[in-house]
Amino acid sequence: MSDVNEKMAALGKVRSVIRDIFEYGNARRREIGAENVYDFSLGNPSVPAPREVDDAVCDLLENTDSVALHGYTSAVGDEGVRRAVADDINRRFSAGVTKDDIYMTCGAAASLTVTLGAVVNEGDEVVVIAPFFPEYRVFAEKAGATVVVVPADTDSFQVDLDALSRAVTPRTKAVIINTPNNPTGVVIKRERLEGLCALLRSREEEYGKTIFLISDEPYRELVYDDGIEVPYVTNLYDDTVVCYSFSKSLSLPGERIGYIVVPQKVKDSREVYAAVCGAGRALGYVCAPSTMQRVVARCLGKTSDISVYKTNRDLLYESLTSYGYECVYPDGAFYLFVKSPDESAAAFCERAKKYELLLVPSESFGCPGYVRISYCVSTDMIKRSLPSFKALIEEYK
Amino acid sequence: MSDVNEKMAALGKVRSVIRDIFEYGNARRREIGAENVYDFSLGNPSVPAPREVDDAVCDLLENTDSVALHGYTSAVGDEGVRRAVADDINRRFSAGVTKDDIYMTCGAAASLTVTLGAVVNEGDEVVVIAPFFPEYRVFAEKAGATVVVVPADTDSFQVDLDALSRAVTPRTKAVIINTPNNPTGVVIKRERLEGLCALLRSREEEYGKTIFLISDEPYRELVYDDGIEVPYVTNLYDDTVVCYSFSKSLSLPGERIGYIVVPQKVKDSREVYAAVCGAGRALGYVCAPSTMQRVVARCLGKTSDISVYKTNRDLLYESLTSYGYECVYPDGAFYLFVKSPDESAAAFCERAKKYELLLVPSESFGCPGYVRISYCVSTDMIKRSLPSFKALIEEYK
Repeated sequence: MSDVNEKMAALGKVRSVIRDIFEYGNARRREIGAENVYDFSLGNPSVPAPREVDDAVCDLLENTDSVALHGYTSAVGDEGVRRAVADDINRRFSAGVTKDDIYMTCGAAASLTVTLGAVVNEGDEVVVIAPFFPEYRVFAEKAGATVVVVPADTDSFQVDLDALSRAVTPRTKAVIINTPNNPTGVVIKRERLEGLCALLRSREEEYGKTIFLISDEPYRELVYDDGIEVPYVTNLYDDTVVCYSFSKSLSLPGERIGYIVVPQKVKDSREVYAAVCGAGRALGYVCAPSTMQRVVARCLGKTSDISVYKTNRDLLYESLTSYGYECVYPDGAFYLFVKSPDESAAAFCERAKKYELLLVPSESFGCPGYVRISYCVSTDMIKRSLPSFKALIEEYK
Repeated sequence: MSDVNEKMAALGKVRSVIRDIFEYGNARRREIGAENVYDFSLGNPSVPAPREVDDAVCDLLENTDSVALHGYTSAVGDEGVRRAVADDINRRFSAGVTKDDIYMTCGAAASLTVTLGAVVNEGDEVVVIAPFFPEYRVFAEKAGATVVVVPADTDSFQVDLDALSRAVTPRTKAVIINTPNNPTGVVIKRERLEGLCALLRSREEEYGKTIFLISDEPYRELVYDDGIEVPYVTNLYDDTVVCYSFSKSLSLPGERIGYIVVPQKVKDSREVYAAVCGAGRALGYVCAPSTMQRVVARCLGKTSDISVYKTNRDLLYESLTSYGYECVYPDGAFYLFVKSPDESAAAFCERAKKYELLLVPSESFGCPGYVRISYCVSTDMIKRSLPSFKALIEEYK
């Protein structure tokens, strides 16, 4: 009998690939100066929170009773906050949700672990679509599920519906989608999303069971071109659970604040919502941080200055493709997913280090042969890095 | 096959007894006015956070870069914060811990779920000592453990070591203690604690395995008399993991901030710490709220004005015992645990409602026949409630 839980110890010991690169970057910054290292490894927002965030905090501290502000809220979240969130969703997406469908969480990761904890029974399958955020596997397996990966459609990085059709079985409890996507930046087009929903609906009917569509939406607000639509998934598929986070839209990743939506049209919606409450309780989430709940309620509809990300994307996408890199056009999030000119993305990333370029190889995203480039960095750093990107690909010509 | 996880749905649907009483109180307050309802049901701090908390928030917002302040910290917590916490522990308790032994958490419940997730393997036993915080059962079972209850020592509400001795078996992975205790307010005396540690040490040797002593310490700072010692448990037993929270000491229960200590003298300490990191990751705790981490680091050694609780305790304890109630003397926390004069504590609580007294029956704490009275309320309310307490016990004479 082991003295600890070996699985958890292993998880805690394996530093993620991204973290390793970040540590390498720290060492390199000390050696040659931060201005000479081009670190594209992290998905940490680089623009400050909008002014309204700090203003809201100060105003709340000044004008709210301390015991009420810092005290427990209801486990599902403050009622006024939930009403504001529901109103915002309805205003923007006509989704017809109510405050009683909202469960405030400690950020996107909590939204996912609580939702998976609520719906998964030991042995269920959870389908993820490559390339995908690596923690999906950790969260789904912790909830007792087996993860089934739909291979990437590397032409468009839209979802390959034939491959999805093969992945969904009578044991499928949920499918996770993430649009705009980490690591590709791709937004799933409405038509494709409708196809995905039709497929799930027909399987629900065929199997006589609910298949939840879990929509992980930390990047929902981060799209850069006019006319790019990110459809609200609950409007397309009844058994959708939305997992939202304010981390990226308001540049608050450390504050841990987000929410889950369980619309009433979900089958046995109140049972699902109760299971969300139960999973949140059992995982130790007593309530989402109380001040931040009120802050985000006051900042609904606001975002950080995401025009910086658009500038960065345009500059990087245009420059890299002009040098000969292959890359799917990213409509949102703050990542480029670039085809490795080397067969081995890891070898390519090693070679990039010679030029002080820190890139993330794509293996852990379930789609080998690519690198993720996070452009949530200063535009100036991107400009300075361009000669390095150019010289790097020249090596492969 | 169920569409959700039934266990979680059941957990989410069962409102706790305390929550039910609170809702009853809300209804009653609307009917007869808040000033006429004497609600002793909730453990929500009633005194504001110390001024230093809000000052620290404002100063951080003004003088820290937004991206750094609101950004992700390391998963284990900001390094400076962990150093400050370790220094504070060493200054107060000479515990010889380092920043690398500290893991910042989203409050006491997270400290417990992460610790249990780290050490428990399916089928392990976790020992709790009655009366105990009811969520221990939820957290331990979610981690895969079977809960073994040590019956209460209702003479002193110190730990019954003979009963503990019978409860500890080769399958015991951990014992949870909570001193000062919710719901009794009792502080375990040093001598008894030493006896408990000696017992666990001898069983570790006998079974050739680690038995973790999990010290749940949300009430550590809340003791009211000179000379009352709350020994630092890591100094008495090597395999101790401390689960701390600032919820009660700084009146911040809604903000979700606490920490775990895994001292290096714990057997395979770094393996345990890694498992804590892994469990935190798998449960979805990306990092503890970033601003609050810095705030508590600046407020170490400070507390809310707990003199109010002492005033309340003295008034309530002296009055109730003078009326004929039986109650163990509470050295800390903010609860009185009063023997029900009725055989059924539930019946007694029902009768108390006639006098607008809202009390919590003790069944869910694993020790029937008592009521918990939370005195984290206004002193004025206590004064106004005294005639009701007097009239209530007169009914039993």
